[in-house]
Amino acid sequence: MNETITSILKRRSVREYSTKAVAQTELDQILEAGRNAPTAMNQQPWHFTVIRNPELRRKLEEQCKTAFLESSNEALRDVASQEGFSVFYQAPLLILVSADRTALAPQYDSTLAMGNMMVAAASLGIGSCWTHAAILFHATTRGKDAYRELGIVLPEHHELYAAAGFGYPSGGWPETPPKRADCVTIME
Amino acid sequence: MNETITSILKRRSVREYSTKAVAQTELDQILEAGRNAPTAMNQQPWHFTVIRNPELRRKLEEQCKTAFLESSNEALRDVASQEGFSVFYQAPLLILVSADRTALAPQYDSTLAMGNMMVAAASLGIGSCWTHAAILFHATTRGKDAYRELGIVLPEHHELYAAAGFGYPSGGWPETPPKRADCVTIME
Repeated sequence: MNETITSILKRRSVREYSTKAVAQTELDQILEAGRNAPTAMNQQPWHFTVIRNPELRRKLEEQCKTAFLESSNEALRDVASQEGFSVFYQAPLLILVSADRTALAPQYDSTLAMGNMMVAAASLGIGSCWTHAAILFHATTRGKDAYRELGIVLPEHHELYAAAGFGYPSGGWPETPPKRADCVTIME
Repeated sequence: MNETITSILKRRSVREYSTKAVAQTELDQILEAGRNAPTAMNQQPWHFTVIRNPELRRKLEEQCKTAFLESSNEALRDVASQEGFSVFYQAPLLILVSADRTALAPQYDSTLAMGNMMVAAASLGIGSCWTHAAILFHATTRGKDAYRELGIVLPEHHELYAAAGFGYPSGGWPETPPKRADCVTIME
C-alpha cells in the first residue's frame, strides 16, 4: 500500500488536541490540498475561513453550545448536555468552507475540499474532526447573527457547508473504529 | 511536499479513458480508502456498487442521456445535446455510493468516501471523474426505474449520492485547470 493510501487509512477523527499550533507552512499545504478538490464545472464557488485565534474559537464554541442547549430540538439539547460536550474539542485551528449557494453543487464541492484537507493533515501527523454542529448552528438565523457578530463574515450568498478542527493529537493517534465489511456489490 | 499531498494535487478529472481494466488489487485499495472516510457518528450508512460490465455501463449511459434529451429541464437538454456528451466517458469502472437517506448526514458521508477513492486512485495512476449526471438521473422516478431494470438495485431506503468513473487516462494526464487564488481569509 502506497503512502497516499496509508495516509487515507490513517486519518481518524481526533477529539483531544495539544495546544501546539499548526505551522504556516503546513496550513498552506492543507489549504492547497483543499483548493485542488474537484468542483462542478470547475466553478470553485468556495471560500476558506481559517480561525487561529483561541479566544474567537472559544466564543464561537460557547455561542453554539448555548444555542443548542436552548434549542426546541430535543436531539440538539441532548447532544449539548453531554458531559464534556465541546463543539471543536479545543482544536487550535478551525477551517470553515463556505460556498455560493447558487453554484451547481456547493455542498459537494465544499465537502470534497474538506476531505482533501483532512487527508493532507493526516499525512502531516495533524488530526482533524469534522464539526457538523458548526454547520447546523450557521444554518439558523441565530447562528448566522452570532458568526457575523464575532466578525466571521462569509462572502455574500455563501452558506457554510463544511467545518473542521485541526491540530496535533494530545492523547495519541486514535484507533480505527470498527468498519462495516458487507458494503460492496460488484457487477461484472 | 509529501507523496500524499502530491497525489491530492495530481488528481484531475479524466474524460478520456483507455480500455485497460483496473486490477482487482487496485480496486480493493480504492474501496478500502472509501470505507475509511469519516461518517457522522460512525454510522457508515453507505453501500458501494461497482460496475465493471461495459455493456451495463453503456446501457445506463444511454438511458441517462435519452432521459436528459427528453427532459423538461432546458439545462439538462442542453448538456446532453453537446457533441460527444458521454455520461461516464467510457470509463471501464464505475463506482456508485448510495446511503440510507434517514442517516444523519448521508450526502456528506458518501461524498467524503468518493473523495478518498478519487485521491487513492490518483496515487495509483488511475484517473476518475465525478459524474453528477448519474446522480441527477437516479433522483428522478424514471431514473430509479431505469437503474432497477438494469439490475442495479440499491439497498432499501438508499439514495444515490455519489458516482464516478475510474480508469487509466488514454490521452495523458490532464493539466491542472486554473485555480482561484483569492479564496482564503485567516483570522488570527
